[in-house]
Amino acid sequence: MSEIRVGILGLGTIGLGAARILIEQQNLMARRLGKKLILVAAADRSLDRDFGLDLSGVRLTDDANDVVTADDVDLVIELIGGYEPARTFVATAIEHGKHVVTANKALIAKHGEELFPLAENHGVAIGFEAAVGGGIPCLKALREGLAANAVESVYGILNGTCNFILTKMENEGADYAAVLKEAQELGYAETDPTFDVEGIDTAHKLSILASMAFGSKIKFDEVFTEGISKIGAADIEAVAELGYRIKLLGIAKPHCINGEEKVEMRVHPTLVPLSAQLAQVSDSYNAVMISGDFVEHTVYTGRGAGERPTASAVIADVMDIARVASGGVKYLAPPMGYVASERQELATLPMADVQCEYYLRFMVQDESGVIAAIGSILADHHISLEAVSQKERHATQAVAVIMLTHATTEGNLQAAISRITLLASVQEDVLILRKESFGV
Amino acid sequence: MSEIRVGILGLGTIGLGAARILIEQQNLMARRLGKKLILVAAADRSLDRDFGLDLSGVRLTDDANDVVTADDVDLVIELIGGYEPARTFVATAIEHGKHVVTANKALIAKHGEELFPLAENHGVAIGFEAAVGGGIPCLKALREGLAANAVESVYGILNGTCNFILTKMENEGADYAAVLKEAQELGYAETDPTFDVEGIDTAHKLSILASMAFGSKIKFDEVFTEGISKIGAADIEAVAELGYRIKLLGIAKPHCINGEEKVEMRVHPTLVPLSAQLAQVSDSYNAVMISGDFVEHTVYTGRGAGERPTASAVIADVMDIARVASGGVKYLAPPMGYVASERQELATLPMADVQCEYYLRFMVQDESGVIAAIGSILADHHISLEAVSQKERHATQAVAVIMLTHATTEGNLQAAISRITLLASVQEDVLILRKESFGV
Repeated sequence: MSEIRVGILGLGTIGLGAARILIEQQNLMARRLGKKLILVAAADRSLDRDFGLDLSGVRLTDDANDVVTADDVDLVIELIGGYEPARTFVATAIEHGKHVVTANKALIAKHGEELFPLAENHGVAIGFEAAVGGGIPCLKALREGLAANAVESVYGILNGTCNFILTKMENEGADYAAVLKEAQELGYAETDPTFDVEGIDTAHKLSILASMAFGSKIKFDEVFTEGISKIGAADIEAVAELGYRIKLLGIAKPHCINGEEKVEMRVHPTLVPLSAQLAQVSDSYNAVMISGDFVEHTVYTGRGAGERPTASAVIADVMDIARVASGGVKYLAPPMGYVASERQELATLPMADVQCEYYLRFMVQDESGVIAAIGSILADHHISLEAVSQKERHATQAVAVIMLTHATTEGNLQAAISRITLLASVQEDVLILRKESFGV
Repeated sequence: MSEIRVGILGLGTIGLGAARILIEQQNLMARRLGKKLILVAAADRSLDRDFGLDLSGVRLTDDANDVVTADDVDLVIELIGGYEPARTFVATAIEHGKHVVTANKALIAKHGEELFPLAENHGVAIGFEAAVGGGIPCLKALREGLAANAVESVYGILNGTCNFILTKMENEGADYAAVLKEAQELGYAETDPTFDVEGIDTAHKLSILASMAFGSKIKFDEVFTEGISKIGAADIEAVAELGYRIKLLGIAKPHCINGEEKVEMRVHPTLVPLSAQLAQVSDSYNAVMISGDFVEHTVYTGRGAGERPTASAVIADVMDIARVASGGVKYLAPPMGYVASERQELATLPMADVQCEYYLRFMVQDESGVIAAIGSILADHHISLEAVSQKERHATQAVAVIMLTHATTEGNLQAAISRITLLASVQEDVLILRKESFGV
């Protein structure tokens, strides 16, 4: 039985998960693959510890360069994370003729456009299923399973930390800061949670999904990104009364404007109808909803993070590559779902031109006429309202006025909001949430 | 650009959908594939009609043999359905060196074990993604995306007709017969609905999923199968009050009993907790939940039938095959997810040995002591109760007594039921529904 020799960079949580599958599941995978996957080497900065796994027979080194240049390694699994030195190690592995599998969304989102051609020139594959949606084989679904479709939209709950926080805020009526602290204590959130809670991780993943869906180049820097740190328990409650739940969504849609194709990409807390499939995805689960012109709506749900689910996706890529290793990567679907020459430099739709429905929360002094004044400015901008509510009335305190609008452009909405915040009785911190409808 | 020449057998709903994608989406698919898919021939018994599609340039014939033996066809899409003549045409196509893609679950479930080796011997591929879950790429997820996992369970809502009927019964409080009639008028159910409503279609699909999940031979004849025709509006209401929804599920699990691997396969109406993802899948949508030892729970949802979704899955298979056509099918994942020599003749777990929790509905004469008598027999069989309810009390009419049991084996439950129906005050038509819990 032929063999594929694997090296791992980074024996953290996911690295050990990948090592565990390669060791414990070797026979099962050989029955599926007709080939043996052998873990021959692993690099980590800290080797003097208990890995909780029998790594005898695996060459351990604290120098990743030993793995990416080793003659006896066919495929390198990069699980260091972050931009550098991951990028340098991956590039070196490719230049040494090794296939690469990674779970590193930051790396692909930021440096994919440099790494894909490098891999193509060296006749090796790059797999990154684990970079989006953790264990869910959603990139494979989009790239291969839905390849006959023009993709009409992608909606994703792509960050388990945010989904965990939002679920807990709703279930416990707790505020953001308290739940974040608890998530950090449980290890569900990093000490510096910025990447997760400010939507950057979701934007990394969305930029990859959008590129694969529409055949465009990856443009992570152009994703409109808002996180969840401004959401309060009161917002979650107010939204629930209107029949919605707040989810941090990544959203991508294609547009054709005056004959020019553009890509809409945005990450923000979103009002999702309680009846939608995505509203049911709770805790640290992820979900991706992909709609195509033939398949209609499809939804993929599963664990978005964690040692074992992420390792499952990593090793699925290893198996795909192992299957074609003897013949060449031309027998694999192209990494981004389109052949390289057909991937286009599509413009990103400016956020000002994006159409949304909005949930607006104004804090106002309860003076008579303030709702009428806000409504009048919105009407000036042709923004019509679906619902208005004002909860409690205190003569001395600011109270929340909540409005749901019908669809308008972001630019128009922001122009109206700028005028509204000039009203003497309206405070400056207007909460603007966007609302989406779904087919399923 | 190299070309793959395609022939279609059967220009019914799905056949026309497949033809439509091949024609309308040709450029998009070429950008993804780097090859052109060309529809060269199509066979149908009835050619003298408006196809609603420009088929000029396509050779139309009323003799399927012309397509399966044609020199200018590389790949045959079989969309005739049923066992014969589909089986003969598929075998002939394979013997003539043509790849085959089919949406025919009956064919694969019944004749797959004969067709797979035939295809392997002739060096051609068989694709059948569309046979299970319609447009959802769930077989690809199981076969490739989760290939690093030992599969722990598969649960599927696999028949859109049944799901449509059950959803409508719940929403309208309507009875089975009335909703079936409406579904037939809308074209959602066949004139003879037996295959759908009696669970046979679901059993076809489940037998394929189970075989792919566990590396066992397909044993459609051994699937325990019960349909939905005995469910009444009152049952749906009673179940809802307990926090459940009835779904027709196909369920497959692996077992190791005294060192022997066995496969549990059953299709029946099932109580699903309202909070479960599968409970949210309504109307004609399908969903498959696959759990693995590394990935944990994953759920795949989408349209389970219909021209366009099913054609999406058919053409995804065509694209997968086209990608490796020049190199050989060894570069594809094996059709059933394990290399042929590793597919085992696993025994099916006898239904009597299957463990379930049960919902029991007894129609009883409201004599004092009857619930105690039933309870006493259940206790004799060590079956403990989670809940008991009796709705209304009429002195002269039979009333429904509903019991939820804790887990017991089907054999034990049936033995107890046989004794209970001997009680003078219990009518014979006991409704037995099974109940499942889910991780998500």
